[in-house]
Amino acid sequence: MINANDPSLKSWIEVPSGSDFPIQNLPLGIFRTASNPAPRMCAAIGNFVIDLPVLNYMSVFDELDFPPDVFVQSSINSFMAQGKEKTRRFRNRLAELLHEGNEEIRENAWHFLHPMEKVELLMPIEVGDYTDFYSSIEHATNVGTMFRDPNNALLPNWRHLPVGYHGRASSIVVSGTPVRRPMGQTRPNDEDPPVFGPSRQLDFELEMAFVVGQPTQMGQSIPMKEAEDYIFGMMLFNDWSARDIQKWEYVPLGPFLGKNFASTVSPWVVTLDALEPFRVTGPAQEPPPLPYLHFQEKKNYDIQLEVAIRTEGGAEKTVSHSNFKYMYWNMCQQLVHHTVNGCNVRVGDLCASGTISGPTPDSYGSMLELAWKGTRPIEMPDGSRRTFIQDGDSVILRGWAEKEGLRIGFGEATGRVLPAL
Amino acid sequence: MINANDPSLKSWIEVPSGSDFPIQNLPLGIFRTASNPAPRMCAAIGNFVIDLPVLNYMSVFDELDFPPDVFVQSSINSFMAQGKEKTRRFRNRLAELLHEGNEEIRENAWHFLHPMEKVELLMPIEVGDYTDFYSSIEHATNVGTMFRDPNNALLPNWRHLPVGYHGRASSIVVSGTPVRRPMGQTRPNDEDPPVFGPSRQLDFELEMAFVVGQPTQMGQSIPMKEAEDYIFGMMLFNDWSARDIQKWEYVPLGPFLGKNFASTVSPWVVTLDALEPFRVTGPAQEPPPLPYLHFQEKKNYDIQLEVAIRTEGGAEKTVSHSNFKYMYWNMCQQLVHHTVNGCNVRVGDLCASGTISGPTPDSYGSMLELAWKGTRPIEMPDGSRRTFIQDGDSVILRGWAEKEGLRIGFGEATGRVLPAL
Repeated sequence: MINANDPSLKSWIEVPSGSDFPIQNLPLGIFRTASNPAPRMCAAIGNFVIDLPVLNYMSVFDELDFPPDVFVQSSINSFMAQGKEKTRRFRNRLAELLHEGNEEIRENAWHFLHPMEKVELLMPIEVGDYTDFYSSIEHATNVGTMFRDPNNALLPNWRHLPVGYHGRASSIVVSGTPVRRPMGQTRPNDEDPPVFGPSRQLDFELEMAFVVGQPTQMGQSIPMKEAEDYIFGMMLFNDWSARDIQKWEYVPLGPFLGKNFASTVSPWVVTLDALEPFRVTGPAQEPPPLPYLHFQEKKNYDIQLEVAIRTEGGAEKTVSHSNFKYMYWNMCQQLVHHTVNGCNVRVGDLCASGTISGPTPDSYGSMLELAWKGTRPIEMPDGSRRTFIQDGDSVILRGWAEKEGLRIGFGEATGRVLPAL
Repeated sequence: MINANDPSLKSWIEVPSGSDFPIQNLPLGIFRTASNPAPRMCAAIGNFVIDLPVLNYMSVFDELDFPPDVFVQSSINSFMAQGKEKTRRFRNRLAELLHEGNEEIRENAWHFLHPMEKVELLMPIEVGDYTDFYSSIEHATNVGTMFRDPNNALLPNWRHLPVGYHGRASSIVVSGTPVRRPMGQTRPNDEDPPVFGPSRQLDFELEMAFVVGQPTQMGQSIPMKEAEDYIFGMMLFNDWSARDIQKWEYVPLGPFLGKNFASTVSPWVVTLDALEPFRVTGPAQEPPPLPYLHFQEKKNYDIQLEVAIRTEGGAEKTVSHSNFKYMYWNMCQQLVHHTVNGCNVRVGDLCASGTISGPTPDSYGSMLELAWKGTRPIEMPDGSRRTFIQDGDSVILRGWAEKEGLRIGFGEATGRVLPAL
């Protein structure tokens, strides 16, 4: 069988230059169409989505022995639960069907190909539990410098374990869903009582999330050497944050209403398999972590990230250029740590990275850092200035891995801010 | 129709004196039997469970117009989602069928009654998101006194909002499920590096949780006057905690692996309707909270709580007597605060109270407080002493409301601790 990662593969479907979705990617999602409003599974290639139930009906995946309804679902959870061996064979088989040397299904393309702009992309996974880590050393250092002690910006535990906390699963929404500015309690002045009103410090957080594809039992820990078997793929993740609400509420039990009003994910789950060519070595970890967190080989990924803000009716400005490779703690370490106490994971669980800031000021992953606590406003194309996000602004996250002409992209995670009610 | 809250009602089914489950309670659960392993809905009365699909098959609930499969589910979520008006009519109708003046179904009792000790009680709800509050002023004061400043035990936000954080839904298990002692990273000595091993400070937390019975949309806030419409019922909740893991990890983003290895709930969901006679006034709130948290009338409930520890093969000792009425922040305030920023809730979400400690040392809701950070060990019937929970110990939470001969009980939430792997 073909290997979908072969960089020389080309598809008989046109893939525009610079597309996020060449035949080597084939990310998975859920969609519906005007003529068939039932949510179902799809893959992306170029500017098209592939209607997987229709393709499956042509018996082209029969040898994979999937349950008959695996593609007729409102999430890709059942598909992921088939296990990596099968989902990997599926991706290779799909590449085989689509590559330019293969005529097997080509004449029926009009049955299963939809122009991407004609379909509605839905939330691709059913999230069980959502965990947010805090694994960028640059971000943690920036926040510690701003709010605590510049000389001891990292707290004592930070270099010993991937700090994380539980977030809200119910309010994770797919790209394109509007985000309402939250109301809440804040205390602008420490001498005065708290006040109630719309958040005045609405922020984004540039993150990526991995999707758990295999479950564990309670009491079971995932050892490092098996961690990748449990990570199905990745998505862009905007962890919207109301800094003023968060600041007043978060001691001592962590962020709550400052975060749980919304998180935005990209509509496509890019498989870890497709990202294989982009493995890189991560930052050196000093001091070395405890043995259960030791790992072999390259566990980071070189994924370019950017954030743009578009004012209402105006133009877009890219405000951050970052990279997933900066992560101090890698995904395997996060998952191993998460389960070392026997905490069970389920198919569809999301683990987000925490804000991904790079080493330079133009690579910071939040307005809090980019505008440095409001002291360095960002000028927009329409002449207005931003220290935080304003009503009507759209925040657009983009990500792609690129090397030697091969580009594996994530699409966008976009949300426009509506005024508070 | 009969009102199930009528204290004079008696059932033709024998209800032993002191039972948690008189005809005025009728809590809901999920069960299966050796002869029919399909999970399905039941209610409790005396020492029996009522097989609701069988009873429904007798057409006795036809006028309630439920979906045909509402009782043939592995959780009570679909039932709750029918709405309070219908679920209230259901409880009244069930009381009508079971009260001693009614012969309607009595001769068929052998069809739908199972002795409780012959059935397996399962997790009654499918939990979407689980939130843990921190709403007992005595508990927060004790913890603040031990770990921070006895003169400023409460943090500045505590009296202004019900502090809460997100917990782990995947590891919430029903009473009777063993709990494995977690492994993890701790730092026993601040001068030395952290170490890895089994937690040495395994604790329980005596809590209650309410179950959300109606969903909201993202962006929607629940106003105080509607809050009770969204609260279906209550359960006992043991928020198992590894104090040593928690202490090292929890700054700045809150508890994570110190909590998410397990939480134990009781198998019965007691409706808020059944608790109606036990409403009481809560503690005075000073300073008065912001207007969105203002409430009318009695929002607390007089529910007696106790915790017992049973050593392996030994006898039980009750180590705490507390009461849900001590809660500073009530459930309506918790839910209103939780959604004031537009965070959406789903049917089956659980909101736990936080440790419920009373004003006296024998009413504290955790070993941390009862043994005061290890300084006041508790003597067990076998002569051994406890500062935290040991392997083989069972922790048993019990709760009941009682007044003028009427007792509405919650059953037990029990978990036995297995040694670390």
